[in-house]
Amino acid sequence: MESLPHVLDLIGTFVFALSGGMAAVKRKLDLFGVLVLSFAAATAGGIIRDVLIGAIPPEGLNNWRYVCVSLGAGLVTFFFPSMVMQRWNPVLLFDAAGLALFAVTGTHKALLFGVNPVTATLLGMLTGIGGGMARDILLAQTPTVLHAELYAVAALLGAAVVVTGDLLQLPPNATTLVGAGLCFGLRVLAIRRGWRLPIAGADKQSDK
Amino acid sequence: MESLPHVLDLIGTFVFALSGGMAAVKRKLDLFGVLVLSFAAATAGGIIRDVLIGAIPPEGLNNWRYVCVSLGAGLVTFFFPSMVMQRWNPVLLFDAAGLALFAVTGTHKALLFGVNPVTATLLGMLTGIGGGMARDILLAQTPTVLHAELYAVAALLGAAVVVTGDLLQLPPNATTLVGAGLCFGLRVLAIRRGWRLPIAGADKQSDK
Amino acid sequence: MESLPHVLDLIGTFVFALSGGMAAVKRKLDLFGVLVLSFAAATAGGIIRDVLIGAIPPEGLNNWRYVCVSLGAGLVTFFFPSMVMQRWNPVLLFDAAGLALFAVTGTHKALLFGVNPVTATLLGMLTGIGGGMARDILLAQTPTVLHAELYAVAALLGAAVVVTGDLLQLPPNATTLVGAGLCFGLRVLAIRRGWRLPIAGADKQSDK
Repeated sequence: MESLPHVLDLIGTFVFALSGGMAAVKRKLDLFGVLVLSFAAATAGGIIRDVLIGAIPPEGLNNWRYVCVSLGAGLVTFFFPSMVMQRWNPVLLFDAAGLALFAVTGTHKALLFGVNPVTATLLGMLTGIGGGMARDILLAQTPTVLHAELYAVAALLGAAVVVTGDLLQLPPNATTLVGAGLCFGLRVLAIRRGWRLPIAGADKQSDK
Repeated sequence: MESLPHVLDLIGTFVFALSGGMAAVKRKLDLFGVLVLSFAAATAGGIIRDVLIGAIPPEGLNNWRYVCVSLGAGLVTFFFPSMVMQRWNPVLLFDAAGLALFAVTGTHKALLFGVNPVTATLLGMLTGIGGGMARDILLAQTPTVLHAELYAVAALLGAAVVVTGDLLQLPPNATTLVGAGLCFGLRVLAIRRGWRLPIAGADKQSDK
Repeated sequence: MESLPHVLDLIGTFVFALSGGMAAVKRKLDLFGVLVLSFAAATAGGIIRDVLIGAIPPEGLNNWRYVCVSLGAGLVTFFFPSMVMQRWNPVLLFDAAGLALFAVTGTHKALLFGVNPVTATLLGMLTGIGGGMARDILLAQTPTVLHAELYAVAALLGAAVVVTGDLLQLPPNATTLVGAGLCFGLRVLAIRRGWRLPIAGADKQSDK
């Protein structure tokens, strides 16, 4: 049981890296580009969090497991892109699990480094969504999470449950499970039902 | 009098956040995207400065006032975009005030953390312009400050006055006021008269 | 002999800054934009490395030599763009030298700060390629290094030689020379022969 979170963490890393690698393959990056995108999508959220809380060097960079797993996912995507595409539905499911796991573990780590509850919630969410944002920025695109799908809100919910549990001194294992479960459930529901956040009803003319 | 800088600081944060929120609304981001852009435009300059000088966790992230004010501005922009647009001239004026304030306070903080005078000047300027740059990069655009309007130079002037005053051991309150005043004045003049920096007279063919 | 690495380091900085400045001139940025791109292309790799290993404030920001040399290169590019363009072949050669030098010195610095060998290799490579990536992201483009030319692999090779030498406790001067020489040689060969990394053979349809 001790090792279950670590296994889940590595599965999350692998699946996030697949999403980065696939985006790179679609944009015709070369082998190096695919590996960078895989690595960035899998680890950027945690790396940025660690820089912001002062956990130097960041674990996503200094732990060879993350490096190997994300580069391995990049190689898989580079050499077998159609195999990954055919399994995109399970990939999305594991991605939701990765999001849930990254959000709750990121929140715990932020709390451990003594930031305040609001900040810990934001950093937990950032741990979950930061990789996908880095992936999109490297491809010179507006991050998907800012304009499509209900994704960040699920991470925010998971993080908020963990922080609330911490404030109320509830048992951490319980709040972690509930937070991750709610995040995962909300994300899966959002995929199945196509839930989105409202778009601002601004001026009709497109600019740029 | 003690609280005047804090009030101005929060006004600057609010107005910078409006600029981020409006950019997000124009690009049809969803509610989450508008909030992220508001937060980034208001706090990214200070957060990057804090990471670079080792002020961890960054104040823009760990002080709930900044978080609340910038998210509040995001909500206002999301729900009442035309109201914000109609008041764009006063918004620009407050933006100039925010720029001046961020530049001088950012310079002071950098000096306090012991960086050298040149670096402190650059970091003061970065405090003023970093939010707008983050806003544009998140929208996959070249930062406005790099190719349009005279904006960064005003922040640079304000920061340089503060650093020079520090080197000459002049009274800090006086140099802060003069630096902020010059920055604000130059920025307002640049808006009114359409001042710009020269563009390099390079090859005519566009490449991209 | 003591000062040779420093001279090479400043030449590398100057040439990297030229590449940033030229990219800015081609995209019609203004004088400030050209200076920012020069500075970013020359120092971003080292600055990001320093943030990730905790060398605060980063040397590229806090050492006035780097600031002056990179801004000087920006001014040269802004005022004499065609002169720089006419010398683009020697610029590419010096760029390869800068890449080699940045990769090996970046690796040494990372090892000095106690990160593990894999991380040190990645950070050495990042020191070499980070500036060019920052330059491209600021111009809202996918970094060239991710999809064109054999560039990062040369830096990776140089960094790996230094790390291997460190693990085997070989004399650092020798491994540094060999690492830098291999990086430089591979990069120059790649330019002359048009070597590239393979592109993933993904679906034909372009998306977005």
